[in-house]
Amino acid sequence: MAKRPTIDLNTLRHSASHILALAVKRLFPRTILGIGPATEDGFYYDFDSELNFTAEDLVTIESEMKKIIGENLPFERHVISKEEAVTLFSTEPYKLELIEQYTSEGNDLSYYNLGSEWFDLCAGPHVKCSGVVKAVKLLNLAGAYWKGDSNNKALQRVYGTAFPTQKDLSAYLVMREDALKRDHQKLGRKMGLFLTAPPVGQGLIILTPKGTKIVQILRRWVEDTEEKWGYLQTLTPFLSKSDLYKISGHWDHYKESMFILQGFEGDMALRPMTCPFQYMIYLNESHSYKELPLRYAETSTLFRNEASGEMHGLTRLRQFTLADAHIICRSDQVEDEFEKVLKLILYIMDTLGIKDFWYRFSKWDPANKSGKYIDNPEAWNATEASLKRILDKLQLRYVEAENEAAFYGPKLDIQMRNVWGKEDTYFTIQIDFAAAERFGMTYIDEKGEKVRPFVIHRSSIGCYERTLAYLIEMYAGKFPLWLSPEQVRILPIADRHNEFCNQVKDQMINAGIRVTVDDHAETLNKKIRQAQLDYVNYILVVGDKEMEAQAVNVRTRDNQVHGIQPVKDFIGKIVQQVNKKNLTV
Amino acid sequence: MAKRPTIDLNTLRHSASHILALAVKRLFPRTILGIGPATEDGFYYDFDSELNFTAEDLVTIESEMKKIIGENLPFERHVISKEEAVTLFSTEPYKLELIEQYTSEGNDLSYYNLGSEWFDLCAGPHVKCSGVVKAVKLLNLAGAYWKGDSNNKALQRVYGTAFPTQKDLSAYLVMREDALKRDHQKLGRKMGLFLTAPPVGQGLIILTPKGTKIVQILRRWVEDTEEKWGYLQTLTPFLSKSDLYKISGHWDHYKESMFILQGFEGDMALRPMTCPFQYMIYLNESHSYKELPLRYAETSTLFRNEASGEMHGLTRLRQFTLADAHIICRSDQVEDEFEKVLKLILYIMDTLGIKDFWYRFSKWDPANKSGKYIDNPEAWNATEASLKRILDKLQLRYVEAENEAAFYGPKLDIQMRNVWGKEDTYFTIQIDFAAAERFGMTYIDEKGEKVRPFVIHRSSIGCYERTLAYLIEMYAGKFPLWLSPEQVRILPIADRHNEFCNQVKDQMINAGIRVTVDDHAETLNKKIRQAQLDYVNYILVVGDKEMEAQAVNVRTRDNQVHGIQPVKDFIGKIVQQVNKKNLTV
Repeated sequence: MAKRPTIDLNTLRHSASHILALAVKRLFPRTILGIGPATEDGFYYDFDSELNFTAEDLVTIESEMKKIIGENLPFERHVISKEEAVTLFSTEPYKLELIEQYTSEGNDLSYYNLGSEWFDLCAGPHVKCSGVVKAVKLLNLAGAYWKGDSNNKALQRVYGTAFPTQKDLSAYLVMREDALKRDHQKLGRKMGLFLTAPPVGQGLIILTPKGTKIVQILRRWVEDTEEKWGYLQTLTPFLSKSDLYKISGHWDHYKESMFILQGFEGDMALRPMTCPFQYMIYLNESHSYKELPLRYAETSTLFRNEASGEMHGLTRLRQFTLADAHIICRSDQVEDEFEKVLKLILYIMDTLGIKDFWYRFSKWDPANKSGKYIDNPEAWNATEASLKRILDKLQLRYVEAENEAAFYGPKLDIQMRNVWGKEDTYFTIQIDFAAAERFGMTYIDEKGEKVRPFVIHRSSIGCYERTLAYLIEMYAGKFPLWLSPEQVRILPIADRHNEFCNQVKDQMINAGIRVTVDDHAETLNKKIRQAQLDYVNYILVVGDKEMEAQAVNVRTRDNQVHGIQPVKDFIGKIVQQVNKKNLTV
Repeated sequence: MAKRPTIDLNTLRHSASHILALAVKRLFPRTILGIGPATEDGFYYDFDSELNFTAEDLVTIESEMKKIIGENLPFERHVISKEEAVTLFSTEPYKLELIEQYTSEGNDLSYYNLGSEWFDLCAGPHVKCSGVVKAVKLLNLAGAYWKGDSNNKALQRVYGTAFPTQKDLSAYLVMREDALKRDHQKLGRKMGLFLTAPPVGQGLIILTPKGTKIVQILRRWVEDTEEKWGYLQTLTPFLSKSDLYKISGHWDHYKESMFILQGFEGDMALRPMTCPFQYMIYLNESHSYKELPLRYAETSTLFRNEASGEMHGLTRLRQFTLADAHIICRSDQVEDEFEKVLKLILYIMDTLGIKDFWYRFSKWDPANKSGKYIDNPEAWNATEASLKRILDKLQLRYVEAENEAAFYGPKLDIQMRNVWGKEDTYFTIQIDFAAAERFGMTYIDEKGEKVRPFVIHRSSIGCYERTLAYLIEMYAGKFPLWLSPEQVRILPIADRHNEFCNQVKDQMINAGIRVTVDDHAETLNKKIRQAQLDYVNYILVVGDKEMEAQAVNVRTRDNQVHGIQPVKDFIGKIVQQVNKKNLTV
């Protein structure tokens, strides 16, 4: 059987964006063009038009695109001089700006025609003819500033996707429909878990009472778990004089990503990491080898000056809170401590029900002599061998990445995919040979001599915001009982049942259950439906029969009816489910 | 009986500082003088000397002061011109600097002689003769930069105090000795609860694992208590674009006290308060009158750019964490909500064992038409009458302060004294008529019309750092069991008891008790003594007899011996004591 030639998806989608632009030009000739690249899962084109495109327009444009595909017009590349380009694109001001930019950067100019009626400034490559783009779909409209700068004009961005076959497109659209339902950006806001506010700014998340409750539960559980695993919690300041960052090296190497407070005590800055603050605690006393390992943990708020375009939902923020820790230990303890860190992560992931994660083992490159790595081959070799031994022993799923280590030691990234299939590093574990030297940390060994300890930087659950995003998407908003902001809703059938319902509510609150009573003047069916839409785990209906029997009629958000249960039994049952962190209710 | 003439303590102590300066000049003639003012509880004088004064020197200097007092030298004031002053103080460079400063500020110059051998640049006033200073005591030595500026030379500051009678001095010294033992600055650091670090900077507290544990206990308790009292916890960002502060008015009226991030999204700033962030949550949805009151609480980290000289221990910080809340309610709910706030505070104070606090009721002044107060006499009168009614009804101890209200409404300050007798406002409750208007907050009333709600700003426990300071001083470090970072220490008599001790420890940890085992190779008596010095509530000794009986031998940090108790009984007892928040153990 002949092998089907593989088509590069990026090229295909870039060509689809040209087809989109031609369709728009045919239908709305006065439209001025921005740019139209391929994206991770499709393409877009930015348009400057007096018209505000509507959803109906997208249908019309998509039909025109299919027509162009049917015409099987050829793509052809033409290299041109700046003068030719300026003449050819004289009616396209954004293209003229790009011509100026590209030539000032010393790049050659080219355009691609699509058939004989239209051409676009473009470096390519493209498919041969429009007919190669077998399956295309326009997806949505958004606003976008020219060059992503809010000082520039707002353009209309049309998003679409394209595939080499209709079958691939259909599969993608099914996935997309599911992803749209789960996307934490949409679902989290719809559920009222968080919001952003323009006067506060981008990348600064406001957690509502519901969102805060989930984070509070996670935080207390992680802190208590870490305490049981031998960690000591600390609370250290969120800002510091530049002196501290000069010692840590962040002032020289990371300043661009930091929020600087100019002119305060020289300069101060919001912290992008916790480590040097916890080192101050270590340095406040002398330490014997017997005291190590010292495991300092902190629910630590950090700040990074992300660029406007880089921020996203709960996953890329300017302020976030990390379950951070630094283990200060002897070299003979590194392997053991690393194994314990991994086991703690496995326990956390397992309890949250997260199964689809893997590790990326980032190693140094002994051949790299550029100064990218601290020069201590012995430490590198020993540590990397230790890590590999543990990863294999625990039978963890990992990929190796050569020449990707930190300056100061190898690291292990915890990788997951969001609901759109995008892989991201959720958090990392890093071995650090350099920190002790930099900060002058020592311990006294058996012989009474001062020795430099190792440091392990690690998280156990990552950033609370990012983990919340993952959980929203994984559970499609239907949080397991122990994490649910509203675990139970009680629905009185008539007003005469209100008092009893409130008594039941009070009993439940005393048992630590998060419960409300819905006594709105609505039909019972509507109230049940609403509770299900709000993803409340248990919905309790109370009428005369239940009241008489000191009972409740139990059903779930998935409309499973469990029937009448005595109040006491029901409370006992769900308290146990919460304590066990049962994931199936 | 003739009334004893009252002597102004400030004047007396200022004169004592001159007596100190003369004594130093007699003993160390080459000393150059800084300044010597009275302070809240004594006086000091700053000296520039090649010698480093020692504690022994202080004894000698104090003797010389007593001699000068015995000589009963007169103080006499002389007004002089700048030229005369410059000539008289030609050998005192700091005085020359002051002469320049005072005259450039347009002030007259004067000096005071003390007898005939010495005089000092001084505005006075002073007592008539040195003999009036009946009782004087030098207390300690410290370094101090000239004019408090670390760019200037470091001088030697000698602190002392003076009283009109020996009896007053003795009483003060007794109080001082007790205060020194309790002062949270000393005791808190000695107990290893917190530290500061020069590279991080002043006013930025690092809580150690022990200090963090106490704050964690308080925080969880306050959050849970507030939840039971109908509050909803939120988590909002610690920084914002200036836009938000422009709406709130902080940008115009409070900018000097804020940490500004210049050039980030225009300008951003760290938040000095929580209110507008929580208002964003309120504004995110429309609200019916039925939903109110909405009580948004937050364990809220705040930042204020305090000047170098104003920072102090845990009580005046650049970063602190407040148990903050904003109650958004209808006007007919203000009285009820205010009463609930006061009852919550009473509950919190009572549970902490804090008895010595009172209220300052800060009211507007109807005669003040300067624009200091929002112009709504009806709201002022109604609200102040409500507050007074509740204060009287609850029989609270309060003082009234006319013309001390906030711009936007009356407030109630919670006042306490630290171990030095210094009164301070620990936190406040404020009624706010203006916030809703400023932020455009409304609710829909019974008639379907949009109405502005009232806002109550309040705390329940104040700042965690400041409350921790108060608790350290009040309990002199001996925290009640439920707050203690180390509740139990187990002391094995010999190595053969270690295993059993560790088993007991594990049982206790499972019961939520904070416990350690001290298996150091030390004598039992030394280990008991150490545990008492560390203020551990219960000290358990374990030998053969105890091990055989599955028991522990219980004593307290106050060396009360409770004798042998079965492990199970002891655990049950102290878990109950913790749950009841018993203050006597």
